[in-house]
Amino acid sequence: MTRYEEVAAALRQRIEHDLYRVGDRLPSLRRVCEEFQVSVSTAQEAFRRLEDAALIEARPRSGFFVLPRHVPDQLPAMSRPAQCPLDVSQWDDVLDLVGMPGSHPLLMLGTGIPDLKAPTLRPLTRQLATLHRRHDPADLNYDSLIGSLALRQQVVRLAAASGCLLHPDDVLITTGCQEALSIAIRATTSPGDVVVVDSPSFYGTLQILKANGLKALEIPTDPRTGISLEALELALEQWPVKAIQVTPTCNNPLGYTMPEARKAALVALAKRFDVAIIEDDIYGDLAYGHPRPRTLKSFDTDGRVLLCSGFSKTLSPGLRVGWLAPGCYRDRAMHMKYVSTGASAKVPQLAVAEFIAHGHYERHLREVSRQYQRHRDSMIGWINACFPAGTGVSYPQGGFMLWLELPGGVDCHALNQRLAEQHIRIAPGTLFSASGKYRHCLRINHAAPLTDAVSQAIRCVGATVATMVDEQAATPVDAEAW
Amino acid sequence: MTRYEEVAAALRQRIEHDLYRVGDRLPSLRRVCEEFQVSVSTAQEAFRRLEDAALIEARPRSGFFVLPRHVPDQLPAMSRPAQCPLDVSQWDDVLDLVGMPGSHPLLMLGTGIPDLKAPTLRPLTRQLATLHRRHDPADLNYDSLIGSLALRQQVVRLAAASGCLLHPDDVLITTGCQEALSIAIRATTSPGDVVVVDSPSFYGTLQILKANGLKALEIPTDPRTGISLEALELALEQWPVKAIQVTPTCNNPLGYTMPEARKAALVALAKRFDVAIIEDDIYGDLAYGHPRPRTLKSFDTDGRVLLCSGFSKTLSPGLRVGWLAPGCYRDRAMHMKYVSTGASAKVPQLAVAEFIAHGHYERHLREVSRQYQRHRDSMIGWINACFPAGTGVSYPQGGFMLWLELPGGVDCHALNQRLAEQHIRIAPGTLFSASGKYRHCLRINHAAPLTDAVSQAIRCVGATVATMVDEQAATPVDAEAW
Ligand SMILES: Cc1ncc(COP(=O)(O)O)c(C=O)c1O
Ligand SMILES: Cc1ncc(COP(=O)(O)O)c(C=O)c1O
Repeated sequence: MTRYEEVAAALRQRIEHDLYRVGDRLPSLRRVCEEFQVSVSTAQEAFRRLEDAALIEARPRSGFFVLPRHVPDQLPAMSRPAQCPLDVSQWDDVLDLVGMPGSHPLLMLGTGIPDLKAPTLRPLTRQLATLHRRHDPADLNYDSLIGSLALRQQVVRLAAASGCLLHPDDVLITTGCQEALSIAIRATTSPGDVVVVDSPSFYGTLQILKANGLKALEIPTDPRTGISLEALELALEQWPVKAIQVTPTCNNPLGYTMPEARKAALVALAKRFDVAIIEDDIYGDLAYGHPRPRTLKSFDTDGRVLLCSGFSKTLSPGLRVGWLAPGCYRDRAMHMKYVSTGASAKVPQLAVAEFIAHGHYERHLREVSRQYQRHRDSMIGWINACFPAGTGVSYPQGGFMLWLELPGGVDCHALNQRLAEQHIRIAPGTLFSASGKYRHCLRINHAAPLTDAVSQAIRCVGATVATMVDEQAATPVDAEAW
Repeated sequence: MTRYEEVAAALRQRIEHDLYRVGDRLPSLRRVCEEFQVSVSTAQEAFRRLEDAALIEARPRSGFFVLPRHVPDQLPAMSRPAQCPLDVSQWDDVLDLVGMPGSHPLLMLGTGIPDLKAPTLRPLTRQLATLHRRHDPADLNYDSLIGSLALRQQVVRLAAASGCLLHPDDVLITTGCQEALSIAIRATTSPGDVVVVDSPSFYGTLQILKANGLKALEIPTDPRTGISLEALELALEQWPVKAIQVTPTCNNPLGYTMPEARKAALVALAKRFDVAIIEDDIYGDLAYGHPRPRTLKSFDTDGRVLLCSGFSKTLSPGLRVGWLAPGCYRDRAMHMKYVSTGASAKVPQLAVAEFIAHGHYERHLREVSRQYQRHRDSMIGWINACFPAGTGVSYPQGGFMLWLELPGGVDCHALNQRLAEQHIRIAPGTLFSASGKYRHCLRINHAAPLTDAVSQAIRCVGATVATMVDEQAATPVDAEAW
């Protein structure tokens, strides 16, 4: 870190910890020079960083002031997917995003990776090292198929915070949430069946449907309240649906949390039509508000909700620790787990269990959700400022993803091609649809520290979109095609 | 360790390292007392241990002599499974074996666990601790879907030793060999298809067939040379087979390695009928002879062999590191891998890669395969001595499993029930059949040190079997029913 970066970081921390509040004036340049023993130009540079991060603004002859949190100028529209079951495509695009090795020269704005440099994660790697250092042969052995009791007990505690009363034997540890989803979907369906999804929807789930010969029925979804219950009811009346797969809390990619009343109504609807619900709660613990929102599972009275979650978004995706509460599908889920990967690795489970048991998990969540919320506001400020008018932006209630809807028929694949020259990549909206809709949408990650490189990248994306909108205006297309 | 155990261990090591060879006389009691500075009764106790381990025998008035390696009095018969495709059952029995937590009061003679206390494994746990201690955020991230290059490069080196020329991009890292098998089977079949298996066959694979709605066509298998090519050819003519799944090297449970000419002929047969081969080589590196046997994959000219392997049997099952060389099914395999668990955990891959790169893997294999071979001989000696006449025993060429065929219609589930009182469990033969055949067979693990508890357990199993044979003789049953 250079000197001015240090000063900027110190001031930023005070803002983030509300020592300087929204509207407050920051100490004068002179004061900052004295306090940090730096030159005026260094202090100026530090202030410039904070301006770039949309944290403060300069007011002529008055000094620097802490900016309000930004809200989007415009939300994305309610989605309007095709109202019939479809085969899932888009694998090539997904592979393009997930097939990449971890280290490459592109600035990946589109990934689903949390901030892995958070200092509050340290006890986790320490714990892993300690466990391996003890050289216990039992740690090298197969775990029991259901997973380590120590972790299942902690999962039960976490689930209680979302309103679920589970017993440790109700929980099956999996290899990431992806395996939990795969098992849940296979345990509730047979090839050829129809599965309802919210839309846009996590591409990992859509690809599970594809791999199992299932059809996706995408339901219109509101960017603030989630899947349309009205459209869902019509769909359940019309089609032989076997399961409903939704991410109702801190949704990926839209960021909304369904209001509790709508969650209860969704579970009631599933019960009325005797359909299973596969609930993805992987971002649920990253809700910005306290206490965290309830799960659908907490409204479940007869075991039809299969709750899928894990620690890839709250802690580390490299651990591959997920879990599934399969409700009344437990027997089929155990069989699927066995044939899929056998028992899960033991040491990562023990490390996560210890991390939670010692209170590190709650401390970490507190820090990172505040950070992600702050980043959301800065990002939205930048987007409001540098994207063309008519750009819709989601307003997430948790997690670290923004969903953008671009005006004027801009194609995100074309956008990615142009951005490649600047070594930037976004996640195209088409990944989140069974049939390649949402070409004019994209997802952006705001987990990691908003460095200059990130702020420049956002500006660059905004400018490129603006150029493309102008070009499109010259050659109009049929908006319906999107 | 007590003093006499120390003396016994020292003498045992000399025998295992051929300082005392088969037929040699051991030093006299007096000499041993002098050398180890122990009492006569301690030396006597040490010799008794070695006698119990079938390593030496006392000859009256001459002293103690190193015993020859034992071979089975009788091999199991060629298997005779039903010659038509069947749905797989037996899940309850499998769950009984694999669902158990790692630590419990039973002496588990039936597991598939290698010796996890081998000192040559130590560098692996050290490496894992070191990797975690470096706190590199990249280690916490998703790996690339195909797996870490460092490990894929080492896998290519290992595969070369079995005659395969692979490129690192031909290898897909998986969550254990179970996931490799699951992916390979799903990539080559559709629900309802017929898959050929050797018989008896690993239960994990049979359960994959069950989970995917596939039918198992079990082929007669010779306990020395593997799947009958003649029966296989007839089956391929008669049924619409999609894939052949075999474990041709150090087979589980029979221990045979198919002769090279038969391996080549099997690949040629698959080519003639245009069928995929799913080769399970997870025990291949534990062959007792050098160089290790060739894989079917090494005879593959057009990518129809999908080679599945991993480090659960050579190193540690708790790591969950496996791999798949999917041949020309690469694209489907990548999709299956993505939907099944996403990218695999990174740190275990890096640790295994380092372990191999530093030569620890070869050193470890050398030690443990010698140990497993020695244990095979001792075990066979015990079984020859204490099981009733007519007991068939396999004569493995690698790995750490024995397959026993009991005379007189003894039922292994009934046997397990009786053994429960002695806190002993074996793996019943029924697990290894699609339809619950092999009720009169069982599998025994000889990986871990052959302690007194193990030798007593084997004697106990033998005596219980003898009792049951006598009881059966009183109430004869139709042998065909088995
Ligand atoms: C909504 C959602 N569910 C599940 C997953 C998969 O999680 P894991 O990496 O634990 O398999 C992701 C990861 O991107 C996700 O965004
Ligand atoms: C023949 C065979 N293949 C595959 C496996 C599964 O290996 P893993 O534990 O790596 O999934 C086993 C384990 O018992 C086995 O015996």
